[in-house]
Amino acid sequence: MAQATIGNSEFDRDTVVTRRVPGPGSDAEPGADHTGALAAYDVDLSARWSILKALNGGYLLAVLGRALGDALAHPDPFTITAHYLTASQPGPAVIRTESIRTGRTLSTGQASLVQTDESGAEVERIRVLATYGDLGALPNDVRTAATPHAMPSYENCLGADDAPDGQPSLANSSEIVGRFDMRLDPATAGWAIGQPSGLGDMRAWFGLADGRDHDPLSLLLAVDALPPTAFDLGLSGWVPTVELTAHIRRRPAPGRLRVFVATRNLACGFLEEDTQVWDSADQLVAQGRQLARVKLG
Amino acid sequence: MAQATIGNSEFDRDTVVTRRVPGPGSDAEPGADHTGALAAYDVDLSARWSILKALNGGYLLAVLGRALGDALAHPDPFTITAHYLTASQPGPAVIRTESIRTGRTLSTGQASLVQTDESGAEVERIRVLATYGDLGALPNDVRTAATPHAMPSYENCLGADDAPDGQPSLANSSEIVGRFDMRLDPATAGWAIGQPSGLGDMRAWFGLADGRDHDPLSLLLAVDALPPTAFDLGLSGWVPTVELTAHIRRRPAPGRLRVFVATRNLACGFLEEDTQVWDSADQLVAQGRQLARVKLG
Repeated sequence: MAQATIGNSEFDRDTVVTRRVPGPGSDAEPGADHTGALAAYDVDLSARWSILKALNGGYLLAVLGRALGDALAHPDPFTITAHYLTASQPGPAVIRTESIRTGRTLSTGQASLVQTDESGAEVERIRVLATYGDLGALPNDVRTAATPHAMPSYENCLGADDAPDGQPSLANSSEIVGRFDMRLDPATAGWAIGQPSGLGDMRAWFGLADGRDHDPLSLLLAVDALPPTAFDLGLSGWVPTVELTAHIRRRPAPGRLRVFVATRNLACGFLEEDTQVWDSADQLVAQGRQLARVKLG
Repeated sequence: MAQATIGNSEFDRDTVVTRRVPGPGSDAEPGADHTGALAAYDVDLSARWSILKALNGGYLLAVLGRALGDALAHPDPFTITAHYLTASQPGPAVIRTESIRTGRTLSTGQASLVQTDESGAEVERIRVLATYGDLGALPNDVRTAATPHAMPSYENCLGADDAPDGQPSLANSSEIVGRFDMRLDPATAGWAIGQPSGLGDMRAWFGLADGRDHDPLSLLLAVDALPPTAFDLGLSGWVPTVELTAHIRRRPAPGRLRVFVATRNLACGFLEEDTQVWDSADQLVAQGRQLARVKLG
């Protein structure tokens, strides 16, 4: 297929948010960025970003992040936190945003994703709190001691097609496999053949299948894209995210990302996943941390 | 002074929140824990927890965390995120809470700290989003690979009284120095004598001055108690927190904590502080991460 571009790709099409024009007397006025302003967006959550039957948490975060980028006075998520309340379903949803504070360089807002259940009741799926800024307006002053983890070249890493049949793997029936151009470091892919390292690590090259380059919104996808580190700990079952926070630190350079995830503390039924996202120019472009429940299978 | 206890200490007295009894027709009903329930609390922010003229972010988080512990159906903050909007002032404030979802094992809510400015206008200081649970109800199942950083004994670390005169130090006029029983690892205290390590680390033993043991609420204080890692990077000036997230993973054992903070990525005017809090039983009891702005002095 032809290489997609930022703004014209399946990721862009599947994260479209449409601002509702408010009626008379509403608090929401299009284009208003004042503190306290409310807005609402219609979205159509696509089953194409699902893992088994669950919509990917990073995809959902990107949809919410896109709405906030429209609602707030600044375009880019600097720090965004999502609490996953109930399981989002493919199909129509509404995002309600509140502009909490608009400053000169930073804006803070919250967003809520809601859906209507079978009985017609409104159910909140996700609540988000975020501070936005303009990555393009920041000084290019870097004094970092962070270094990317060593990993094999893309060609020497393992894609979904490399997974053996009958194993828990990326190459199962999950729709999302077709969205990603992801290859795992073989050192963190042993779980697919029943040989997890036990270390709690997951590392991968990460692109979008249609070749779209990354931007701050797709970094929100990247921080929750890899298989759970629990697999590398030798656990099976479900590891639902309770809360995920991402810091977007720079605009990513074109090309694939490297995503490194580590879990060091599995305790009392919960674990953290710490994520670093590096771009093709060896820049640390995003950091993520999530708290997840361990529901052993 | 006599050793204080949990529930009877200056930290407990200075974080008191008083629930307002709602009037007729209000959404808030005392004791109601249903989804969507609103409540409001009066608080009196104490100048005793200030650094120079700013109230400590961890103290403020603890006050908000205490209100949410009352408002929600579960007692302990499992994951709590605060966005610091404007500078909180000592004196009266109101915390408004919303119960977002009440589940069997987890409850999610948000809270907002507001004050009235000189002109009589209401100004929001902090917005918080959190998920609470019951630490006492969790299985004691730990498979951690995390290990505490080596550091000298409490006796061989440096307290506020050890700081030389005329240097940026803990022993300046800040009120909060009198609240803490904190001693820094000498390896991360060189900035006090003009010899920062340049690594971006800060490590300390951390207790409360009146000897009160720690609980989940005082862990919220601990995650933002140490001097900024920017000092160890050789930077002076102000490093205001934009956003702080804390995961409380266990109830701490009695005794002092060890708090380890590391900054690896100072870039584009922002830095992250990654925090681990370990208790006297060598348990990782809390993890924190904040995004802070670097305003060079």
